[in-house]
Amino acid sequence: MQLVTYVVKADELNIQTTGELGGRLGWIRGDYVVDAVFAQKWLQQEKEMIFSYHMPHDLLDFMKKESVDIVHLRQIDQWLDDTTFERESVEGEPIAIHIEEAQYLSPIPIPNSVRDFYAFEDHVKTARHRRGLDMIPEWYQLPVFYFSNHRSVVGHEVPIRKPAYTECLDYELEVACIIGKRGKDISRLDAHQYIAGLSILNDWSARDVQRREMTVGLGPAKGKDFATSIGPCMVTLDDLEDRRSGEHWDLEMTAKINGQTLSRGNLKDLHWSFAQMIERASEGVELFPGDIIGSGTVGTGCILELGTEVHRYLEPGDQVELEVERLGVLKNVITK
Amino acid sequence: MQLVTYVVKADELNIQTTGELGGRLGWIRGDYVVDAVFAQKWLQQEKEMIFSYHMPHDLLDFMKKESVDIVHLRQIDQWLDDTTFERESVEGEPIAIHIEEAQYLSPIPIPNSVRDFYAFEDHVKTARHRRGLDMIPEWYQLPVFYFSNHRSVVGHEVPIRKPAYTECLDYELEVACIIGKRGKDISRLDAHQYIAGLSILNDWSARDVQRREMTVGLGPAKGKDFATSIGPCMVTLDDLEDRRSGEHWDLEMTAKINGQTLSRGNLKDLHWSFAQMIERASEGVELFPGDIIGSGTVGTGCILELGTEVHRYLEPGDQVELEVERLGVLKNVITK
Repeated sequence: MQLVTYVVKADELNIQTTGELGGRLGWIRGDYVVDAVFAQKWLQQEKEMIFSYHMPHDLLDFMKKESVDIVHLRQIDQWLDDTTFERESVEGEPIAIHIEEAQYLSPIPIPNSVRDFYAFEDHVKTARHRRGLDMIPEWYQLPVFYFSNHRSVVGHEVPIRKPAYTECLDYELEVACIIGKRGKDISRLDAHQYIAGLSILNDWSARDVQRREMTVGLGPAKGKDFATSIGPCMVTLDDLEDRRSGEHWDLEMTAKINGQTLSRGNLKDLHWSFAQMIERASEGVELFPGDIIGSGTVGTGCILELGTEVHRYLEPGDQVELEVERLGVLKNVITK
Repeated sequence: MQLVTYVVKADELNIQTTGELGGRLGWIRGDYVVDAVFAQKWLQQEKEMIFSYHMPHDLLDFMKKESVDIVHLRQIDQWLDDTTFERESVEGEPIAIHIEEAQYLSPIPIPNSVRDFYAFEDHVKTARHRRGLDMIPEWYQLPVFYFSNHRSVVGHEVPIRKPAYTECLDYELEVACIIGKRGKDISRLDAHQYIAGLSILNDWSARDVQRREMTVGLGPAKGKDFATSIGPCMVTLDDLEDRRSGEHWDLEMTAKINGQTLSRGNLKDLHWSFAQMIERASEGVELFPGDIIGSGTVGTGCILELGTEVHRYLEPGDQVELEVERLGVLKNVITK
C-alpha cells in the first residue's frame, strides 16, 4: 500500500519544517486519498461492521500499536466500494479526498531519528575523486553512517529555503527505509521484518559548509541539518515483492532540476543492502518505529558528482523532482 | 537549583538505556530530594496555599510549560519548613526522600537531540597529534559538532555495557548544556536565555570503531552511539552566576578511574563558548527544549589523550567518576 500522512490543502496554512503538524494517516487509491480513521468509522456506522481494534490517525502510532497492522488497512480498503466511497462522509468528514486536495507531509512527520548511510559505491568514488581523494579500503569493510537532524524533516512540495550561509546548495537522490518495529542486534537475515516501507529521500546539502566540517573530521552537521525531504508516501514491502531479489529491490531512480533529467541510477546498485545497514545500525543499540535509514546518494545523484559544468548549484526558484519507480515523485522548490 | 529526574531506588528494577522510565522532577536540598508535584500538593492540602499553575512531574514538560518556571520551584522550596518536610507526605507519598534512596536518571531521560561539539583546543590538538595529524586551521573558523544518538542517553550509576565490538573503550569528560526554550537563529548575545542549566556528560567512545568511521569521513556514529551518560542533576544558571565571567564559567573538571585522578581541566578553557555553540547550532535550524549541547572533551579528559601508557582502555569492573565543581559527580561502572 502507498501510505501517506496528509492534510487537506485548504486546511494547510503554513507547512513548516517542524512542529505539531496534525497530519492524518491515509492511503492512495487511484485518484483518492482514503482516510484510515474515517473509513473505519464509516464501515462501523454505515455498514455496521464490528472491529476488534481502534485505528489510530497517525502512522507512527499505527506502527507502534501491536493490535493493528497493514492487514487491517488492506481489509478496510477491500471493504470500501469503489463506486461510492468518494461521496461518503462520517461525522461531516469525507472518508476520501481527491489527491489534488491532499498535501503530503513526510510519512513520519517527526522521525525518531535519521541515520544516513553512504552505501552506493559510485557516489563515494566520484565524490571523493572530485575532492582529489582516492577510494578508501575501510569503506568496503563496514557500512558507515552519520546521524542527521531528525527535527528538520519536511514533506513533498514544502518549499526549501536556501540557507544564507551557502553558495553551493545541492540535492541528493536517496531512498529512505522506514523502521516499523523496535529491535536491537538485528541480524541481516531478519532485517526486512523491521522495515515498515520505503520512501524517497532528498538529503539537501550545503557543500561549502560540509567541506569545512569534514576537514575537521566531524559530521556533516550544518552542511546537512537545515532540511531533509521525505515522501510523498511510504510504500509497504508487500507491494514491492515482485521487484525484490534477495536483499535488493530493482527500482529505477531519477532526479530532475527544472524538468531536465540529471541523475539516473537504480536502488539495486546498493553495495551495502538495507538489511546490512539495519544490522550495523542496531548493533548494541535499539532501533525504534519511526527511525529513518537513508541509503546514501545513488551514483550521479547530486550536483557535486555531476560537476558544475553539467549544472550550477541550486538557486531560489529551482524545482527539484526525485522519482523512484513505485515510490512516486518527491518535489520541492527552492526559495530565498 | 540542582534539579533532578529521579526514581525511588526500591521502585527501580532495571534502569535501561532507553524506554519509558517514569522519572519524577525534584531538586536536591541538603540530604534530601524534594518532589516537585508532591511538595506543591502538600502546600495546597496542608497549608491551604493556592497556586495559579499546575506543577508537572517531568522536567521536559516543566521546561515546555510557559506558565511555570524556576521562580515557582524556588518559591515552593522556600515555603517548605526544613524541620518538618522530610516527615511529611501527601496521598501516601513522601514529599521528600533521602538522597540515598534516590536513583538519578539523566535530567532529560530522552533528550530531543544530542549535538556534541569539539570546543576545547587542547583536546583537539592532542587527540590529532596522537593520530599523527597537525592542528587544522578550519577548527578556528567555526565551532563544529556532530549529532549523536539521543536514544542512548543514560543517567548516574547506570551500568555501561562494554560493546563486544571494541577493544578500546574510553570515557570523555564533558559538560552538557541543556536547552530550555525553543528558538532559531539565536544570537550569541541572547544565547544564555535559552539555557535551562548545565550537567556533566560522559561521551563513551569506542576508539577503534571511531577511527575507522572517521577515515571514511562520516560520523562518528557507531564509535559513540551505544551510550552517553548525563547527570546526576541539572544546575540552573542562577546558581552559577558567581562563577561566570562573560560567556564562561570557572568550574574545575576532573575524572577518576577506580579512584585514581587521571583528567583535570576547567570549563573556562573552552575555546568556543556555549553561547557560540548555540549560535552555530541554531543557524537556520530550530532548537527545542530538551536538546543537549555537549562541550566536547576537556584537555586530558580521556584515555585517547593521556595515552595507554598512563591508563589502559576500560574493562568490565572499572568505575569512572566525572566530577565538575557545583555540578556534582557522575559515576558509572563498566559491565560485560
